[in-house]
Amino acid sequence: MESLMIYMPIALALLGLIYMIIKKSWVMKQDAGDGKMKEISDHIYEGALAFLNAEYRLLAVFVVIVAILLAIVSVVVPTTHWLIVIAFIFGAIFSAFAGNIGMKIATKTNVRTTQAARTSLPNALKISFGGGTVMGLGVAGLAVLGLTAFFIFFFHFFMGGAWTNTMDMTIVLETLAGFSLGAESIALFARVGGGIYTKAADVGADLVGKVEAGIPEDDPRNPATIADNVGDNVGDVAGMGADLFGSYVATVLAAMVLGNYVIKDMGGAIDDLFGGIGPILLPMAIAGAGIIISIIGTMLVKIKNNDAKEAQVMGALNVGNWTSIILVAASCFGLCMYMLPDTMKMEFFGEGLQEISSMRVFYATLVGLFVGAVISSVTEYYTGLGKSPILKIVQQSSTGAGTNIIAGLATGMISTFPSVLLFAGAIWASYAFAGFYGVALAASAMMATTAMQLAIDAFGPISDNAGGIAEMSEQEPIVRERTDILDSVGNTTAATGKGFAIASAALTSLALFAAYVTFTGIDGINIFKAPVLAMLFVGGMVPVVFSALAMNAVGKAAMEMVQEVRRQFRDIPGIMEGTGKPEYDKCVAISTKASLKEMMLPGLLTIGFPLIIAFVPMLFGMNHLAIAEMLGGYMAGVTVSGVLWAIFQNNAGGAWDNAKKSFEAGVEINGEMTYKGSDAHKAAVTGDTVGDPFKDTSGPSMNILIKLTCLIGLVIAPILGGHATETGLADSDFETVEQNITITNDIAEATITYTTLENGVEVTKEETFSGTEAEIEAKLKAFEASTTKVQGDAKKVIKKMEVIKE
Amino acid sequence: MESLMIYMPIALALLGLIYMIIKKSWVMKQDAGDGKMKEISDHIYEGALAFLNAEYRLLAVFVVIVAILLAIVSVVVPTTHWLIVIAFIFGAIFSAFAGNIGMKIATKTNVRTTQAARTSLPNALKISFGGGTVMGLGVAGLAVLGLTAFFIFFFHFFMGGAWTNTMDMTIVLETLAGFSLGAESIALFARVGGGIYTKAADVGADLVGKVEAGIPEDDPRNPATIADNVGDNVGDVAGMGADLFGSYVATVLAAMVLGNYVIKDMGGAIDDLFGGIGPILLPMAIAGAGIIISIIGTMLVKIKNNDAKEAQVMGALNVGNWTSIILVAASCFGLCMYMLPDTMKMEFFGEGLQEISSMRVFYATLVGLFVGAVISSVTEYYTGLGKSPILKIVQQSSTGAGTNIIAGLATGMISTFPSVLLFAGAIWASYAFAGFYGVALAASAMMATTAMQLAIDAFGPISDNAGGIAEMSEQEPIVRERTDILDSVGNTTAATGKGFAIASAALTSLALFAAYVTFTGIDGINIFKAPVLAMLFVGGMVPVVFSALAMNAVGKAAMEMVQEVRRQFRDIPGIMEGTGKPEYDKCVAISTKASLKEMMLPGLLTIGFPLIIAFVPMLFGMNHLAIAEMLGGYMAGVTVSGVLWAIFQNNAGGAWDNAKKSFEAGVEINGEMTYKGSDAHKAAVTGDTVGDPFKDTSGPSMNILIKLTCLIGLVIAPILGGHATETGLADSDFETVEQNITITNDIAEATITYTTLENGVEVTKEETFSGTEAEIEAKLKAFEASTTKVQGDAKKVIKKMEVIKE
Repeated sequence: MESLMIYMPIALALLGLIYMIIKKSWVMKQDAGDGKMKEISDHIYEGALAFLNAEYRLLAVFVVIVAILLAIVSVVVPTTHWLIVIAFIFGAIFSAFAGNIGMKIATKTNVRTTQAARTSLPNALKISFGGGTVMGLGVAGLAVLGLTAFFIFFFHFFMGGAWTNTMDMTIVLETLAGFSLGAESIALFARVGGGIYTKAADVGADLVGKVEAGIPEDDPRNPATIADNVGDNVGDVAGMGADLFGSYVATVLAAMVLGNYVIKDMGGAIDDLFGGIGPILLPMAIAGAGIIISIIGTMLVKIKNNDAKEAQVMGALNVGNWTSIILVAASCFGLCMYMLPDTMKMEFFGEGLQEISSMRVFYATLVGLFVGAVISSVTEYYTGLGKSPILKIVQQSSTGAGTNIIAGLATGMISTFPSVLLFAGAIWASYAFAGFYGVALAASAMMATTAMQLAIDAFGPISDNAGGIAEMSEQEPIVRERTDILDSVGNTTAATGKGFAIASAALTSLALFAAYVTFTGIDGINIFKAPVLAMLFVGGMVPVVFSALAMNAVGKAAMEMVQEVRRQFRDIPGIMEGTGKPEYDKCVAISTKASLKEMMLPGLLTIGFPLIIAFVPMLFGMNHLAIAEMLGGYMAGVTVSGVLWAIFQNNAGGAWDNAKKSFEAGVEINGEMTYKGSDAHKAAVTGDTVGDPFKDTSGPSMNILIKLTCLIGLVIAPILGGHATETGLADSDFETVEQNITITNDIAEATITYTTLENGVEVTKEETFSGTEAEIEAKLKAFEASTTKVQGDAKKVIKKMEVIKE
Repeated sequence: MESLMIYMPIALALLGLIYMIIKKSWVMKQDAGDGKMKEISDHIYEGALAFLNAEYRLLAVFVVIVAILLAIVSVVVPTTHWLIVIAFIFGAIFSAFAGNIGMKIATKTNVRTTQAARTSLPNALKISFGGGTVMGLGVAGLAVLGLTAFFIFFFHFFMGGAWTNTMDMTIVLETLAGFSLGAESIALFARVGGGIYTKAADVGADLVGKVEAGIPEDDPRNPATIADNVGDNVGDVAGMGADLFGSYVATVLAAMVLGNYVIKDMGGAIDDLFGGIGPILLPMAIAGAGIIISIIGTMLVKIKNNDAKEAQVMGALNVGNWTSIILVAASCFGLCMYMLPDTMKMEFFGEGLQEISSMRVFYATLVGLFVGAVISSVTEYYTGLGKSPILKIVQQSSTGAGTNIIAGLATGMISTFPSVLLFAGAIWASYAFAGFYGVALAASAMMATTAMQLAIDAFGPISDNAGGIAEMSEQEPIVRERTDILDSVGNTTAATGKGFAIASAALTSLALFAAYVTFTGIDGINIFKAPVLAMLFVGGMVPVVFSALAMNAVGKAAMEMVQEVRRQFRDIPGIMEGTGKPEYDKCVAISTKASLKEMMLPGLLTIGFPLIIAFVPMLFGMNHLAIAEMLGGYMAGVTVSGVLWAIFQNNAGGAWDNAKKSFEAGVEINGEMTYKGSDAHKAAVTGDTVGDPFKDTSGPSMNILIKLTCLIGLVIAPILGGHATETGLADSDFETVEQNITITNDIAEATITYTTLENGVEVTKEETFSGTEAEIEAKLKAFEASTTKVQGDAKKVIKKMEVIKE
């Protein structure tokens, strides 16, 4: 029986999207200011659109190629259904559409925020945060809508809308994985391409504008200034949005896969109010509830006092954020109690089946919420203005750029200590509470506040842009002061948002990793097998090389920008006097082209390695389960190393940035107040130059790398695994297997008698092996794997197996 | 029957040590130059001795504490023998003694090299390389001597000098692990403390001397200059020596453990010409042969032409090195054929027993030699003058320190790509050839050339010092030119030597890791268990934090040095005019004290984490095998991450260094020749400042971190593992176990009937379990583990076990 509960998330997602549309039209109705402001805003909007269009063209090519590959795979490999191609395409479209909404609203909100800042700070916050809210709800709403709609469709298509067995549900979820893969592929383009774009424009604008020509930041005479402002949107808005869209979808998917596994552990079917799929629906329900909760949270973000400072603005954001977290906790409690059986059975590797109460699942969700909240504090500590690590970097700046760099690197490195202990503790705790289902639900609960997190995140670059527009359109100083307050808060939320994004990527990857193991049907991933260990090494290396490629890409793209800006300064008459008009669009085009070109190699690395590991050994006839284990080792290597490098790079970059900013208000070094323009400040600027690609390009790219790696693994899993094999067969189709094992000697002979279904006819067969006990074990294992293969319609099924070793 | 072959390595080690003594007295007989040169040399010698003495005092305290801990463990835990304490102390003493020999000869050879350089380049090379040879043979000779002597002693003590069974041999090797632990502990002090020392002195001397006071490097007016020269010896000679001493011993030990495992796989005993321990003796024999081969290799290192340049000197070193490698390959072939059974049986996890020919073991050793040779080329490519990565960094220096730093970081990061693929390929190939025994023998073969590698390595800092003495004693320019040629070659060999040290640490750790698994008796390390995965994360984090601590330590120590040098410039009258004498010893004392103080925290991290992981869960009553798996996950995390960070930091540091040096001869940037003193050069100097602690402190420390972590795991293993358990019982003491398993239902009852020996009396007991199949499995596993515990004399042995599940 199908429950109406399955439609709940979709209804909530639609509600969220409706609210988004209302909010969007409200923002659009706000005053967009005078001619000059509008003109600048239009430049940014057009630049952003130009990037999006170029990106979408490239994406379209990419999506078509991958879709064809997936289609070939789905034809050749009988365990893969062609509908995965459709899911993939829609995943990509939904993610791109969400990014589109975010970019458009962000580039429309910026100028309205500037205009509002002319009247009051509360108004400016209301509008900039309103824009962020549109972005957040667009991402979360589309993610839940797409995922749920496809789930319902596949649930009806493969299972007729009613529970049959866990094998059928596995097919449903495997096909659904295509949606997640599509979403994450877009994230690769948005995050990595966007990261390269934003830093190429930033570095290019600064190197020639600030350093060579000596004109201030955001000066309209600088041809790269529009590209720089577009970059903020491309990187921080669209990139972050696509990243979290991908995490959101992947987390919920992984939790659903593991929910199906819980049902399997409980005997293949459960009886509940939700058509027997309560544990599978739960993560979707939590995600749906999160949308409504986020709306409530965003409504609470407001200030009343026009003389408010950073602390009050931050406080307003915190009220909204913490309310969301607490409400999500409450909804998790309610949903766990309502939707899960009172006690479940879960298989713990090496420990057997255990009884798990729904309360323990709730505790696991609390672990996720805890991690999401604490990681932000950890990030804030290591990168926050006035905190001890930043003060140390400031001190070390007095002896030059070298010591500043060392201090920044060391800060980033040390920050892995609490972060990793937090993650390790979270894995341990959520697993102890409710197995890998608990780990996945911890991630789901954390991600439930995605809309709220994104609203907080996106308001930063919007305010940053608003400040830029105020500068370029030569507003009264008070306007810039107000936008600066918002911008400053935005810088903090950008850093903590990165922490949240890493935590989400880490937990998502772990959940996907667990789902991968269940999909392939391997017993586990034993790193004492040399090929697995070798792949763990290779996996560990990939994030390091990826980061290097991303950093080099920024360097190359920035150099192109530098040359273009120099050319314009040289060739356009009157540009420095403000009489000649810079060709903004040329700079935008360079950033766009360079970023998309330069992201090819890292992208290829991300996608290529898992494919090589999976398919090359297959060509050499290697055992599929052995390959699955190797690929698992690779995934673990990428995840562990990727998380470390993400934390290291993000926090080092954030720390350098704020160490540099510390000089703006003045800092005390060796008893003397030191300001902008001092040698120490110059050293800090050098540090920030290194930190820029760290925190805005290579660092955030790690999130995509680890999630995409695990997703590719998940999509390949059915090709490698033995499980999908039992396709379309209910547990009840199997007779209980009987074994008689007697061992009296090292060298033994084993006879296996088994009954198979061949083209619907039962056939009894016999096979004899001999060898040592270990050899026999190995052969039996191989035999079991082979007898669970599906060969066209001729399903070969063990109905009875008797093993005698004497 | 005991074979004389067991004494072969000890005889060869003694031969090597005798040759070393002869070579040493030859070096000491050489002319040590005039009064001024002698005075400076004595300062360096005394400074080095002062460091050694301070280090030894600290070491003595450390050794006593660890010895007491080990003694307590050996009393409380019946599977650990108190002789491990003796082995540990001697391991520490031997390593310290080897370091002492190296430091003394290096600080005596430097001045003699300067003096020889007054006559000719060939003479200078002969003497500086002679000093290096003494160092290399001292380390290798003492390592083989100590390890072999203790093996023979324990073999007689525990087994009466004749084969009994693999259990007894396991006790022998476990006790022998103490020697290795002692050696590696010293390496921790020498490498980490030495690394901090050398950079604190270097940075301190440069910051005040070169930058503030504007006097050249090695100027005798700089109070820190002696400390700087001492630092070269402390870091590059003693540190590298202790590192390779530790690798050498650990590799051979691990190969012996796995050799014992081969014998176990072959039924617990083999019949060969070597008293049945051929596979165990083989790694020692290879090590012994390597000493003699290294002597031959060092004899070939000479040049004849007084007008020779770097290329000829490098060529001479290469002749010696490649001859050694080829001879080791030949000796491996001979020894494998002679000492191993024609075919062996080895257990491959998940694949059962396989037949392995002795030829395949030889192939595995070739893999090791290949890795040792190729990793040097890889390192040379990424850090060598004139190579494309360095040229790119030079180009990026033109846009400032920021871009120089980014380029250097990226180079170090990208260099992990070929290095890790090489290691991963080596693991795979050597395992495919001959299982983990093959991996360990690959490492052993690579390490056989240790004496030669160290001779090449140590000659660099000796020449560097010789140049310093020439400068300080104001010799003719030709003298400095000649020592500069040697120094320049020494810089290249220092970089490639670091590559060799990483490769040796990586392979050694893998071998130790494999030995660990066999010691604990676990089936493998399954990272799909959440606690194991959590520990993989934690392990991955430790090298990152360790590196940060080491870098910060350099910063702190350097600051103390800076203040002391400033004080002397201020307080000592006439110091800048050369009439006042700087207080060199004060600077030496500061470096010594600071380095030993600052290495405490990273040291604690290294030793503390594995102990916490092993013993804290034990207090909470966690299953020992589960803990063993967690600790294994931690070890794997440390190894994978540590190898990556070692490569990254060493190569980034080496690249920055040579990018800076490129400016000395002049480089072409954007079509213009650019030299020292240019802005680009200043940017490159900043890069080198960052690179210094990377390549000389935190990078090389990674080797020790990963080896020591795996060794601590190995020593803890018997406490965790089930195997040691069967202590003193031959395989024949066990009756064949009988099992009857019939499964017809999910819920089952199991009855186990078993016979034990209690105080020599056979007692038959019965125990009944019930539960699901998985629960029964878990209980049976726990039961089996418990019945193999040794409790004093009351050995509880399964003699017959019958399991009936219905």
